Amino acid sequence: MKPLVGIVLGSDSDLPLMKDAVKMLEKLNIPYEISISSAHRAPDKTAEYAKTAEGRGLKVIIAAAGLAAHLPGVIAAHTILPVIGVPVKSGALEGVDALYAIVQMPPGIPVASVAINGAKNAAILAAQIIATGSPEVVEKLHGLKAQLAGEVEAKDSRIKELGVENYLAGK
Amino acid sequence: MKPLVGIVLGSDSDLPLMKDAVKMLEKLNIPYEISISSAHRAPDKTAEYAKTAEGRGLKVIIAAAGLAAHLPGVIAAHTILPVIGVPVKSGALEGVDALYAIVQMPPGIPVASVAINGAKNAAILAAQIIATGSPEVVEKLHGLKAQLAGEVEAKDSRIKELGVENYLAGK
Amino acid sequence: MKPLVGIVLGSDSDLPLMKDAVKMLEKLNIPYEISISSAHRAPDKTAEYAKTAEGRGLKVIIAAAGLAAHLPGVIAAHTILPVIGVPVKSGALEGVDALYAIVQMPPGIPVASVAINGAKNAAILAAQIIATGSPEVVEKLHGLKAQLAGEVEAKDSRIKELGVENYLAGK
Amino acid sequence: MKPLVGIVLGSDSDLPLMKDAVKMLEKLNIPYEISISSAHRAPDKTAEYAKTAEGRGLKVIIAAAGLAAHLPGVIAAHTILPVIGVPVKSGALEGVDALYAIVQMPPGIPVASVAINGAKNAAILAAQIIATGSPEVVEKLHGLKAQLAGEVEAKDSRIKELGVENYLAGK
Amino acid sequence: MKPLVGIVLGSDSDLPLMKDAVKMLEKLNIPYEISISSAHRAPDKTAEYAKTAEGRGLKVIIAAAGLAAHLPGVIAAHTILPVIGVPVKSGALEGVDALYAIVQMPPGIPVASVAINGAKNAAILAAQIIATGSPEVVEKLHGLKAQLAGEVEAKDSRIKELGVENYLAGK
Amino acid sequence: MKPLVGIVLGSDSDLPLMKDAVKMLEKLNIPYEISISSAHRAPDKTAEYAKTAEGRGLKVIIAAAGLAAHLPGVIAAHTILPVIGVPVKSGALEGVDALYAIVQMPPGIPVASVAINGAKNAAILAAQIIATGSPEVVEKLHGLKAQLAGEVEAKDSRIKELGVENYLAGK
Amino acid sequence: MKPLVGIVLGSDSDLPLMKDAVKMLEKLNIPYEISISSAHRAPDKTAEYAKTAEGRGLKVIIAAAGLAAHLPGVIAAHTILPVIGVPVKSGALEGVDALYAIVQMPPGIPVASVAINGAKNAAILAAQIIATGSPEVVEKLHGLKAQLAGEVEAKDSRIKELGVENYLAGK
Amino acid sequence: MKPLVGIVLGSDSDLPLMKDAVKMLEKLNIPYEISISSAHRAPDKTAEYAKTAEGRGLKVIIAAAGLAAHLPGVIAAHTILPVIGVPVKSGALEGVDALYAIVQMPPGIPVASVAINGAKNAAILAAQIIATGSPEVVEKLHGLKAQLAGEVEAKDSRIKELGVENYLAGK
Repeated sequence: MKPLVGIVLGSDSDLPLMKDAVKMLEKLNIPYEISISSAHRAPDKTAEYAKTAEGRGLKVIIAAAGLAAHLPGVIAAHTILPVIGVPVKSGALEGVDALYAIVQMPPGIPVASVAINGAKNAAILAAQIIATGSPEVVEKLHGLKAQLAGEVEAKDSRIKELGVENYLAGK
Repeated sequence: MKPLVGIVLGSDSDLPLMKDAVKMLEKLNIPYEISISSAHRAPDKTAEYAKTAEGRGLKVIIAAAGLAAHLPGVIAAHTILPVIGVPVKSGALEGVDALYAIVQMPPGIPVASVAINGAKNAAILAAQIIATGSPEVVEKLHGLKAQLAGEVEAKDSRIKELGVENYLAGK
Repeated sequence: MKPLVGIVLGSDSDLPLMKDAVKMLEKLNIPYEISISSAHRAPDKTAEYAKTAEGRGLKVIIAAAGLAAHLPGVIAAHTILPVIGVPVKSGALEGVDALYAIVQMPPGIPVASVAINGAKNAAILAAQIIATGSPEVVEKLHGLKAQLAGEVEAKDSRIKELGVENYLAGK
Repeated sequence: MKPLVGIVLGSDSDLPLMKDAVKMLEKLNIPYEISISSAHRAPDKTAEYAKTAEGRGLKVIIAAAGLAAHLPGVIAAHTILPVIGVPVKSGALEGVDALYAIVQMPPGIPVASVAINGAKNAAILAAQIIATGSPEVVEKLHGLKAQLAGEVEAKDSRIKELGVENYLAGK
Repeated sequence: MKPLVGIVLGSDSDLPLMKDAVKMLEKLNIPYEISISSAHRAPDKTAEYAKTAEGRGLKVIIAAAGLAAHLPGVIAAHTILPVIGVPVKSGALEGVDALYAIVQMPPGIPVASVAINGAKNAAILAAQIIATGSPEVVEKLHGLKAQLAGEVEAKDSRIKELGVENYLAGK
Repeated sequence: MKPLVGIVLGSDSDLPLMKDAVKMLEKLNIPYEISISSAHRAPDKTAEYAKTAEGRGLKVIIAAAGLAAHLPGVIAAHTILPVIGVPVKSGALEGVDALYAIVQMPPGIPVASVAINGAKNAAILAAQIIATGSPEVVEKLHGLKAQLAGEVEAKDSRIKELGVENYLAGK
Repeated sequence: MKPLVGIVLGSDSDLPLMKDAVKMLEKLNIPYEISISSAHRAPDKTAEYAKTAEGRGLKVIIAAAGLAAHLPGVIAAHTILPVIGVPVKSGALEGVDALYAIVQMPPGIPVASVAINGAKNAAILAAQIIATGSPEVVEKLHGLKAQLAGEVEAKDSRIKELGVENYLAGK
Repeated sequence: MKPLVGIVLGSDSDLPLMKDAVKMLEKLNIPYEISISSAHRAPDKTAEYAKTAEGRGLKVIIAAAGLAAHLPGVIAAHTILPVIGVPVKSGALEGVDALYAIVQMPPGIPVASVAINGAKNAAILAAQIIATGSPEVVEKLHGLKAQLAGEVEAKDSRIKELGVENYLAGK
């Protein structure tokens, strides 16, 4: 299947985190591609990637970066595709710098920021965007929502049955 | 035209800000509806709104709120539509509270956060999402991007022609 | 005994922390119930819980959550019972996000916030509220206060007797 | 009527803010008393106030203070009544200092913090506590909740009738 | 004279601030050019500017931007010239976002950050860099340093002569 | 009288603020001298001032500075006199930068920090230090403490007599 | 020798940290006493301690506390002795809460704050205050200053002799 | 070769961090010298170092310090050479204090701040400054830039070849 979501990592040190996004996209059956680029060390590659993304059939881009996290904004500068930014927790400021650098985009060029280290939610958000044109993904997302509610329900039943001590012991 | 974007305000005090989103959607020719609800003062109305949004044909929801800004997250809890959150600058913390309450969503239920007071970008992001299924909006967005670049170019030419003093005087 | 305090956890990962609240309520002889719910993953369950709390005889609700901690506010939206929020330290922002999302409630719907990870104090505060109608709990709380002062007194006597080195060695 | 709520101000500069709490208590028909004291400039008066509060029949204390806002914590040290702290926005840190000094109480002595400048919510929270023993106040609080939801409903109807421009013009 | 310093503004709203840099460069007799570009709205123009800067004879680039201030970092990505970033105070976060987005550059691509709104110091820093190869600028900078010390000396003499009241009155 | 307290201002823009310190020292009858110096623009003058302070008979130094407020620390580096630092609210960070730059001194060279803009308290703290060797100042400080408590008492009586509305009207 | 410095700990968990203050006072030959008290759990004991401190011959009080660190301010409320506050790093906010609660004292009642965990500097500052009336302590402090400068000099010589690698290896 | 870059450490505990700067300067073939000094514990040595730096032929100074990091600013006060400040992550505030104390310099005396712990970038920035007068260093810097881009390209190829799982396994 042709990829619909492009995942771009500012550094391969972000890969363990972004594996969560990959797994969620696979669970939701959304085809994706994964790339490593850098707004600062490989700016031409990044610009090229972003400029050609629409033409190559991508529908959404997920970009993850830490520190002065320019990657999502730089990609958004070169494409009209929705860009989801994942601020990565790293360095002394533990991701607050990345959050501000991603979410505080000036008027005209938006980036959709998720939580610091919010890789899984980036994938779900990408799926929600794909779902606006895909009944299959709509169904998958309703399934995911039901599953999440079911898990809460199960845990609630369990703690009521076991009590605090046994619940903790049995974890 | 049936609305594709639902704008929800946590308070009518957010209306002057969100007018920027309304104007941008109109410029991009995206049909929208506007509502006032509150995650805290009108929780049932908010839940009802969110639960029925998909069925009513909305494709994206933009929710704006300040302080402990629960509105976007509460709406996202009840729908699989992509929800864009606009943290509103207000109160002693000037929107940092709203930003954190919107962007730091737990795994499973994403909200796409834009900048504090980023109403205009929320509208453009909504349009980018709509555009994944609409060639007309794609074209509009390419037009907007060209216009933004053109405005920068014009200002750059003007400052090179006039110099700093005259540019400032003529503003 | 019919529970007077309802403890609600946004996630079972908050249980080790909230055990402190449970133990304090037991020490003060306050009957309680414990539930796991989620404002985002199980919004209907949460609303139902909150709406029925008053009718089921609860006097106070303690709700603990991390990140964009909407749980206490969402419960407060559906009940007139006093709701105590416990911001949980978790994620990159280490609970500042949860604190702001809990304490910065807009006018009309209060939440009583305790410290980040302040599970024990949430239980004491709940007891103080119960005590406004219960001489037994009043007495228990005076006992707790005396005990706390006594512990300080004992440590002060010990350090004056042992000196710094021996006190540290004997700890 | 004998006061049930004691409002204490760290400074008379907090009075314009705390008038919101006074008006809300009056609206909810809760008898209150108001005092000016200071944890730092009048520590003995403050201690005396707190120690005698329970005996004088108060059920809840609301304490407002800015900067290094010790007043609520110092009062809580001397009473088992529930103490609600209102962090006041003032000085260079605009209330973040007051919030931390109020909410971050150590284990054993809780303070119930509301939002920075959250005077109105402090009053509602006090009423919720009183309501645990007063059917009249329960009714008042249900009325307030309905009124808040009704106001949202009315504004929502109005914006749907008038549209954004007319709504803003008519405000 | 051929410009040695390139000043780039992310927006013409930064011009009143950056006039301080312009005036200082003129005082120090350093030839400069001024441009308006934008990392987000005019990314190709920005890249082109940065790539050709070295060849056009520039020695230093000063880039000013607010919010998610990517401009200095994006320029630094395309050139080996030293890039001085000026975080601009604007928006809800008042320049902290711009500071983090400028100073927290990842290893490999440095930006030299000055203070928020530190336009004047950006110009002096640029002059210090030029001075490493220009005895004339060295002399100018020693003159500036002496002038600054002299102004402090004069104010100190004046307050000792006039006293606090008269000094304030005469200001 | 020979000055016992040296007040040093990093800039004459701090003078309106530091007038509060001057007035308090005069009220407490403590002789002082006032200087303008700068750790950055007049480093030799500042070092000379600090090195000669002890010999000239000063007992305490109060140093006020904003932004990267090095003045108190630089003075403390050159003297064994107690140095009180007053972080001045200025610039985009509104004094948090100055607070950190003053209070976070490394082990070996302390600075006694007061609140941001805490000029009056700096003077009282200086007086408390002088008082360790002066019964006259001890007496003055007891008088000040009594006066502060008296003012609180008077305001409390007044609000109890007048009520909220009249108190506010009469202010 | 009669103690001149009173060290007060809000909790015995602060003792390992405050041992640094004790060791420095012993090195400087300043007699001290050490106590454990708590502004919140033992408020009467704390008030009594502070009220009798001057009469018992203390010249300075050092008070250490974490979280909503009211101890130094509460002691300062009851005495005219200079009070040095040591904000203790603990809890989710890692001492920022303690710093704000100690340093941001309102006008009238100063506390001299040192750095977060600045126990050693608190002792040196206390010594500097004692030194205003004691030539012996003056001499000790000049000795300490010379020792600190000497240590830097020795390290500098060593790195120049050994180079980076050998210096690191030999550490 | 005569050193062109002077590296100054506020403490030898900063040496493991600053080894990254040393290694980068060696890679770029820039001669350097390394010193340990302290703005607070060895102020005269620091002033002497800075005053003689220009005369000794240095072109740039890199100064690293943590906490109330005055070292770069104090050096800049005494020289017209460009001074690069490296805020060191240490203590409770984890380098935010050092960043503010370095970057927020007042008008007149700039410091070029790099990221918290940005030792490597400090070296590259120093090389960029040297390069304004050295074709050899220009060439080295172009080589470094190409190498960085090449490394990104290689990682991108590798992840596309191996996929996420194998890439992670092979790391």
